[in-house]
Amino acid sequence: MQLSRRTERLSASPIRELLKSINRPGIISFAGGLPASDSFPDLDISGVSKEVLQYGASEGESELRVRIADDLKMRGLQVKPEQVLVLSGSQQGIDLVAKLMIDQGTSVAVEAPSYLAALQVFSLFGAQYITYNAQDLSALHTSHPVQMLYTIPTFQNPTGHCYSEAERLALAERADALNCVLFEDDPYRDLAYDTCDRTPVCAYVERTSWIYQSSFSKTFAPGLRLGYLVCSEDLYEKLVWLKQAADLHSNRLSQTLVLTMLNADSQRLEQVVDSYRIKRDQFQQQLRQNMSSHATWEEPTGGLFFWLQLKRDLQINMDNLLQQALARNVAFMPGAPFFTTPVARSFMRLNFSHASNSQMQEGISILAELIDAAD
Amino acid sequence: MQLSRRTERLSASPIRELLKSINRPGIISFAGGLPASDSFPDLDISGVSKEVLQYGASEGESELRVRIADDLKMRGLQVKPEQVLVLSGSQQGIDLVAKLMIDQGTSVAVEAPSYLAALQVFSLFGAQYITYNAQDLSALHTSHPVQMLYTIPTFQNPTGHCYSEAERLALAERADALNCVLFEDDPYRDLAYDTCDRTPVCAYVERTSWIYQSSFSKTFAPGLRLGYLVCSEDLYEKLVWLKQAADLHSNRLSQTLVLTMLNADSQRLEQVVDSYRIKRDQFQQQLRQNMSSHATWEEPTGGLFFWLQLKRDLQINMDNLLQQALARNVAFMPGAPFFTTPVARSFMRLNFSHASNSQMQEGISILAELIDAAD
Repeated sequence: MQLSRRTERLSASPIRELLKSINRPGIISFAGGLPASDSFPDLDISGVSKEVLQYGASEGESELRVRIADDLKMRGLQVKPEQVLVLSGSQQGIDLVAKLMIDQGTSVAVEAPSYLAALQVFSLFGAQYITYNAQDLSALHTSHPVQMLYTIPTFQNPTGHCYSEAERLALAERADALNCVLFEDDPYRDLAYDTCDRTPVCAYVERTSWIYQSSFSKTFAPGLRLGYLVCSEDLYEKLVWLKQAADLHSNRLSQTLVLTMLNADSQRLEQVVDSYRIKRDQFQQQLRQNMSSHATWEEPTGGLFFWLQLKRDLQINMDNLLQQALARNVAFMPGAPFFTTPVARSFMRLNFSHASNSQMQEGISILAELIDAAD
Repeated sequence: MQLSRRTERLSASPIRELLKSINRPGIISFAGGLPASDSFPDLDISGVSKEVLQYGASEGESELRVRIADDLKMRGLQVKPEQVLVLSGSQQGIDLVAKLMIDQGTSVAVEAPSYLAALQVFSLFGAQYITYNAQDLSALHTSHPVQMLYTIPTFQNPTGHCYSEAERLALAERADALNCVLFEDDPYRDLAYDTCDRTPVCAYVERTSWIYQSSFSKTFAPGLRLGYLVCSEDLYEKLVWLKQAADLHSNRLSQTLVLTMLNADSQRLEQVVDSYRIKRDQFQQQLRQNMSSHATWEEPTGGLFFWLQLKRDLQINMDNLLQQALARNVAFMPGAPFFTTPVARSFMRLNFSHASNSQMQEGISILAELIDAAD
């Protein structure tokens, strides 16, 4: 029996494997990107037509596509509803775009670090990487051809960085110069705790093809698995065909529920953001008290994560540290899987949206204690 | 800008394109595999926990996996819940299995004809085909290596054929001899109108690896996009990883609703089957009255389709016939897309589950009239 060659590049997602171990009772988890359960809306399907149980359009429900296009226009991205493709969560967008763009050896530019589940999918299809970050686009010059440029400009995963307007303009200009497809992943944009330019980079593109995607997982409910992409018109039809081939169409009940929530409750999102801002500040305070001598970090102006860089003189095996932390009932994400090549420094990604204040205190102090002991 | 090489093999699904045109009012559609809308269950989420809105396990909800494994045991396929992977519809299973198995040039054995959306996905990943059918396995001999054998043994799409026990045993034996992965697609098995062996072919496999999948679209609600696969233990972990990479996990609200429906209403499926049996008989009667001089067919003992082979002396351009039929507000599926190579004879696939009795009468008589005129 012979499996496909791509299966040699297949590996478990460290996040998903970690998520398994954190299902045990009593664990304090800073590992996933789980929204707080109390942020979830109430479910009400009393007004939902039974028609949603029938097969639907691959592109998505018309009304939802109109609503998404309207929303993007207000954010500065001029799109028609006909450019909207509803997804079964934005992870699916990564799969579809990888199918559209990546063969064995295709050159893909990614931030270092970047979202690990995107890196996994790109690698599965055979991507070769060029790395860059917001402050340093020097690797992106036209002498090195790039077929696709992947970016998370708003509250980047894992760093939390929000690109400035100048950084957004520079990245769009570089994509135009490279004549590559700009793939912008924007799941966290609504979770903004401080002022920050959040105009889609795709809005600044002048010539090249682009794909922009976002998700309803962070602001509504990940369990409903709903996201969407919009793209330049030249790519749309092929992406719809790939969507058909992947799962025919997205869940129609989810689409109806999300549309209802979008239309109904304008205050809910504000409340969610307010409660996450408090959590971020509490987390920051605990980090300052416990981690200042061990690590540095940028305070995230949005999103769900703190990204800690351990100090240069700390030589810590992060896999060991994770095992020790799990033994003390604390979970976090080591930084290595977010990079395409090994890095000399040690990083940790800590989620602040899921734990309670007392769990933060306990969990961060345990991590500090373990780092002390490991040093 | 350069897209992936596989996009050259990308094309719209003829079914999905047809489905668009059949959304216009007044159309009589024999084209899709749409369940009758009045077969849909009532939606009730009053007992559903808000916890389903959180991220979930890639494998699926535990209780649903137990229920699926129990069900398969009763059908003769001995599996553990740990071998069950819940899917976002069984189209997703085709995508995951193609990723697992198919590179450019991989040899895949398919029935001729076979499910066109499976052929599309296999082709997208670069499959080379060997064709066979239930009565003739001669192309499947060990001198031609086959990496995967795809079969729809129960109420085959499009032919409606239900493999006999002897045919099932022969196919399983051949898969063992070829040491290839047997991929059994079984979405129609619950729609049985007459007695027919429906034991999964995978249950007869002795040595080789296998994947069996089914769907809740035909018996519950396609709009919820839910299906599942089970497989030999050697393949399971890789398929879970591919599922993670594709969309993290399946919709948890759908999983909860389907589990509730499976546990609650044992009579509903029987009623659906009874009503479809009546529809099949009505359709058969109309075909006999209008089509006997134009075509031959096997009465389907289950599933959703009649597969008509036009008589040898009828030289009809089926694409023209389809356009003429659509102009008269009747939709059907021409047979060509179900084959991997051009065939000399003309075929039509006619769905009988969606149209009302009077629509059947009108639609079939229009088709007969157009065939008369085209001859």
